[in-house]
Amino acid sequence: MYALAIHGGAGALPRVPFTAARENAYRQGLMQALDAGERVLERGGCALDAVEAAVASLEDDPLFNAAHGAVLTADGTVELDAAIMDGSDLRAGAVALIRHVRNPVRLARRLLEDAAHVFLVGAGAERFAAQAGFSLVANDYFITPERQQQFEALRQRRLHSPAAAASAAIALEEPPFGTVGAVARDQAGALAAATSTGGTAGKHAGRIGDSPVIGAGTYADNQSCAVSTTGHGEWFLRTVQAYDIAARLRYGGCSLRAAVSEAIERRLVALGAAGGLIAVDQHGEIAMERNTPAMFRASVRAGEPASVHLI
Amino acid sequence: MYALAIHGGAGALPRVPFTAARENAYRQGLMQALDAGERVLERGGCALDAVEAAVASLEDDPLFNAAHGAVLTADGTVELDAAIMDGSDLRAGAVALIRHVRNPVRLARRLLEDAAHVFLVGAGAERFAAQAGFSLVANDYFITPERQQQFEALRQRRLHSPAAAASAAIALEEPPFGTVGAVARDQAGALAAATSTGGTAGKHAGRIGDSPVIGAGTYADNQSCAVSTTGHGEWFLRTVQAYDIAARLRYGGCSLRAAVSEAIERRLVALGAAGGLIAVDQHGEIAMERNTPAMFRASVRAGEPASVHLI
Repeated sequence: MYALAIHGGAGALPRVPFTAARENAYRQGLMQALDAGERVLERGGCALDAVEAAVASLEDDPLFNAAHGAVLTADGTVELDAAIMDGSDLRAGAVALIRHVRNPVRLARRLLEDAAHVFLVGAGAERFAAQAGFSLVANDYFITPERQQQFEALRQRRLHSPAAAASAAIALEEPPFGTVGAVARDQAGALAAATSTGGTAGKHAGRIGDSPVIGAGTYADNQSCAVSTTGHGEWFLRTVQAYDIAARLRYGGCSLRAAVSEAIERRLVALGAAGGLIAVDQHGEIAMERNTPAMFRASVRAGEPASVHLI
Repeated sequence: MYALAIHGGAGALPRVPFTAARENAYRQGLMQALDAGERVLERGGCALDAVEAAVASLEDDPLFNAAHGAVLTADGTVELDAAIMDGSDLRAGAVALIRHVRNPVRLARRLLEDAAHVFLVGAGAERFAAQAGFSLVANDYFITPERQQQFEALRQRRLHSPAAAASAAIALEEPPFGTVGAVARDQAGALAAATSTGGTAGKHAGRIGDSPVIGAGTYADNQSCAVSTTGHGEWFLRTVQAYDIAARLRYGGCSLRAAVSEAIERRLVALGAAGGLIAVDQHGEIAMERNTPAMFRASVRAGEPASVHLI
């Protein structure tokens, strides 16, 4: 029994309501990524390949804040973070501050396979990418006209109200929302998780959020669950959010649903942290929760129809 | 009742036995750092100030692999990582790939206070440091003659046996050992943890280990414990080691001693991971465990004599 869930970020409702065409484009992007992952699982492929395929599809889609279409830093460039983890043996790969690799999740996967390092960042990571045969792209490849406009608007706001604009909350007010991720259980019972992001809009150069941090934004262990988060990266780093869910199962004997609900609806709310996560456990149970008005997400299990939700 | 523990890294026994003078120098370095932290706690200062003071002392000591005296990367430079966390409110600061800040733990502390970002890396972090008034030093400041010799020896070994020399195990074979860290409980019951490292000798440029990763190498929460780890960074990233100890207390109801013993002596050994950690819980209980032959460590509690151990 395979199971797959993906997200395209959590946040506030768009201040300008979506047109039907725009809403449809997001639904299509999510379905395309879900299909890419499900095709792997259907034919008996492994969870690790499925989450990589789903996340790479969302990275290529300019609507989502990952790789092509990512938000811009305060300097007007794109810096990308991604991670992937195999729940079968706890192998993991994570990259951050990537400026020239088309699909950061594939570079993270390569690190996972290479096994010498888990976490490689910046120019050193891109040197590794070049040596591993990845073709590098110009930073401009990632920058869409929409993100350029968002950047200009944010810069104007900072000129008028530096304090408010510096708040990490800004990214959550900006539709489309954020980070992308996937979790899967394959037919053999293995779990995997992957996450990819452009981070928060207008972020300080060098800032890393929770997405590429194993345990915070991404975690998988066949003995408990696979998790990918989206939201206030700084808070999810502090709460070690992805592993917190796994630990609630592993040490607290919680069900997946209870663990996710307690973490997202109670603990994070009490801390003032906004966001959501997707998770799948060893039984193929899926949880997708958020304490924000919206979270772009989709899921499918073997023999069941796929579902897509924006709010 | 205050409590403080520090470590100066875990690893193999030196291949060449220490002279009495050299052993004494390490003991003095550990005692000096312990004193720096204890002076803060004695006068009623907070745990956060105590771990910062202790770690900064070890960073300044050329005998330890952090800041001045850190190991060299494959490129022959020094890249430094550090993190600090306040268990009272889960504030945290983490920096990595630092080349020009004399005390990375103090930069991490500044990030913690600044609160806009948790994790800032590389040139972006050093720009933040300059803006925050830190004076930057040349990378040469960190490089000692002993580390330069170690670098040359490692380069020769790589020329003769590239595969063996690329192994992450190398750093653990190299005395003096590694990473430094501190955990404290102050008189008011607050917990804090800090860790600082030069990483593994001959590491790939851009490689980040567990030390600066909140949840992996460093974690503190007044409700459970404060932890600082040292050892196979890649494994500790995968096991989310510092938060794993906290979660065993928080969700599993374990004692600190049982949690640390189960994690270090059983789980990490089963995974083939070598290293150790220091931890203090809300009652002021201290645990210092490793599955390596040696771990440089020292601890003290109010009204009790300090202890220092190298093996």
